Amino acid sequence: MALEINARRLMSHLEELSSFNRTPGEGVTRFSYSAEDGEARKYLLSLFNAAGLGVSVDGVGNIRARLEGSRPDAPVVLSGSHIDTVLHGGEYDGAVGTLGALEAVQTVAESGAPHSHPIEVIVFAEEEGSNFGSTLSGSKALVGKYGVDEMKKLKNPEGKTMYDMARDAGYDPDSMPSHLLRPELVKAMIELHIEQSVVLESKGIPVGIVQAVAGIKALEIRLKGVSNHAGATPMNLRQDPMVAAAHLIAQVETLAKGTGTGSTVATVGRIQCFPNVSNIIPGEVRFSIDIRDTVRSGIESVVDGMAVLAPATAVSRGLALEIVPVSESAPVALDSGVLSVIEACAKKQGTPYHRMNSGAVHDACMFAPLVPTGMIFVPSRGGRSHVPEEHTAPEEIAKGAALLAETLLELAR
Amino acid sequence: MALEINARRLMSHLEELSSFNRTPGEGVTRFSYSAEDGEARKYLLSLFNAAGLGVSVDGVGNIRARLEGSRPDAPVVLSGSHIDTVLHGGEYDGAVGTLGALEAVQTVAESGAPHSHPIEVIVFAEEEGSNFGSTLSGSKALVGKYGVDEMKKLKNPEGKTMYDMARDAGYDPDSMPSHLLRPELVKAMIELHIEQSVVLESKGIPVGIVQAVAGIKALEIRLKGVSNHAGATPMNLRQDPMVAAAHLIAQVETLAKGTGTGSTVATVGRIQCFPNVSNIIPGEVRFSIDIRDTVRSGIESVVDGMAVLAPATAVSRGLALEIVPVSESAPVALDSGVLSVIEACAKKQGTPYHRMNSGAVHDACMFAPLVPTGMIFVPSRGGRSHVPEEHTAPEEIAKGAALLAETLLELAR
Repeated sequence: MALEINARRLMSHLEELSSFNRTPGEGVTRFSYSAEDGEARKYLLSLFNAAGLGVSVDGVGNIRARLEGSRPDAPVVLSGSHIDTVLHGGEYDGAVGTLGALEAVQTVAESGAPHSHPIEVIVFAEEEGSNFGSTLSGSKALVGKYGVDEMKKLKNPEGKTMYDMARDAGYDPDSMPSHLLRPELVKAMIELHIEQSVVLESKGIPVGIVQAVAGIKALEIRLKGVSNHAGATPMNLRQDPMVAAAHLIAQVETLAKGTGTGSTVATVGRIQCFPNVSNIIPGEVRFSIDIRDTVRSGIESVVDGMAVLAPATAVSRGLALEIVPVSESAPVALDSGVLSVIEACAKKQGTPYHRMNSGAVHDACMFAPLVPTGMIFVPSRGGRSHVPEEHTAPEEIAKGAALLAETLLELAR
Repeated sequence: MALEINARRLMSHLEELSSFNRTPGEGVTRFSYSAEDGEARKYLLSLFNAAGLGVSVDGVGNIRARLEGSRPDAPVVLSGSHIDTVLHGGEYDGAVGTLGALEAVQTVAESGAPHSHPIEVIVFAEEEGSNFGSTLSGSKALVGKYGVDEMKKLKNPEGKTMYDMARDAGYDPDSMPSHLLRPELVKAMIELHIEQSVVLESKGIPVGIVQAVAGIKALEIRLKGVSNHAGATPMNLRQDPMVAAAHLIAQVETLAKGTGTGSTVATVGRIQCFPNVSNIIPGEVRFSIDIRDTVRSGIESVVDGMAVLAPATAVSRGLALEIVPVSESAPVALDSGVLSVIEACAKKQGTPYHRMNSGAVHDACMFAPLVPTGMIFVPSRGGRSHVPEEHTAPEEIAKGAALLAETLLELAR
């Protein structure tokens, strides 16, 4: 018999969590290590205690809340997400996966279904990078990618380090070595999250099963020409970096659509023009290119294409060109065994699902190289996220949480 | 016999004038009604007095310095430019035409050549718009385009009006009605100015004779799409205003080159992207289009082309479009009779010249509809202006001033 969650309880938990908010009326703003974050965590701890879960907190504020199985030494099945937000973010990003995991664990516990493996809710600190500009800092610390040295280098805009902010919030970052994830003690990790795009909504399907998380290559293209009077300079005597940038930005879309993987995306989200005055031919234009794919060849195809087009355009227009690599991360494949379990559970629940990829990076990505890892997506209305309008329908959240409960029980049996 | 100017005197005047400067070492900054402007004007008045010219100053600070002719009631031949600059501007924009006119008048006077018409040097106030964001304010006040009401509306960034600043600088703006230009008392107006572009330099010709000043149409294109996660949104589900803007900006160049007038220029000098973050598909992109031509049909051809392309692009990409008219001014034809006189004088002087258009607007444009008006250009090194690097070679300045002297004498005979 399929598990049934308590959707009303889950929604009331989500609503309550969203009240710990620095910017009421203007979306949810809850940065890690802030006063709002501290209050939100007290609330979570009260929920974990009420659910009879055993709680531990590590040196950067990651919380683990454990439902014991019949075999206490069996490797644990983990599930969770984060509760920090961007500035003026939404109520669902991270929160759905955190409180959905709690609801799933409570559902398993209340069902009385036997399971030998323990199940843990995990709450990651500092996922969004809102404080220090570096995403996944809590999960990176948990898996040992960020040590104390890195925490002392990560600074917020006021110059305060992650190390100091964690200490001031009551944690002991120096203790992290003793809290590091021990992969041999983990059977699987499942993260429930909002999709943050329009794929599920456009298909009318309530649940996505994530196969892979896209890798990212971020570049900045800098074109330098000759700034001049917009009226006095004939068209054939110009070295105008704006027109060159326009041709290249148009090509970014063409390149991304033509890689043949079907999953490449490329975005020009930022452009800077100098001096950016309407009656002056620009002297310099810079723009970002964010290229993602679950297949490395898709990313490389766009990068290689730009490496041919940009110099050709620059040379033909008498411009100086720089292609600056900004960041790079490899695609992450999720565990096919875990995906099969999620898929079987979706069928058992009678929930339509869509196998898909994630273009955004999540805490689960830090686990994928170490332990069998899966992700479940629920739709985002209009694909919006990181905005006050971020929304997922309660019945979709319920379907995602129920699938998570079924999956955790199946993995923990 | 051709007139010969005193090039050393002119260059020393230019050097001295550039010392009245708020930003030494960082170009020349001399806004109208500033302390530097006041000192520069004292210096000019001393030069005018030493040259035996009769000086009058109007209610906004335009200075006229008169060399009488043999027929005192004959209409005057005017020549001059401005001495105000942009922030961190150069030593030549305006100054060459102001001190060049003085040098020309002194040369005529010293030559002893008879002339029946009086000749006046005119120094315009507030040409650049550095204080109030509105160009040609001094010449507009002189020809009656700006009355006291307008002067009370023009405000600098601190909220101080042109009316009040002129008063504080010692002028009486309420007296302007009695100073208004009386076209019937003017035989001709000639402005010497730096070209501010690369046409003369690229041809290796020291002097340009301006036939027409381009009209301007300024637009802003606003494209609104749907901001979304750069990683999570497939290419075919995007409503990305940046890609649309790129296609249109590339077309601006194509349209301008294809109008058939040969003199159309169009520039995208400013772009704004919201939120302008590298990993977010933009929600809105705005860009300026500055379109100029001496022929009205050239401007209209670009505007009409954009009026077809922009909606087509917006519709095909699911974007909202606004085309916002920002400003418009008609092309100004200069006087063919005056041009012929300048041309004949260039031949007499043995100075190579090029008949050309001006893409930039100058004080002379305010005179062109009222009195026979001409302009002489000298080259700008690298086409640069409004920057500290602004430069014209002394021998080119000398050739321009000598041509101006010859022309003023010819017109004043």
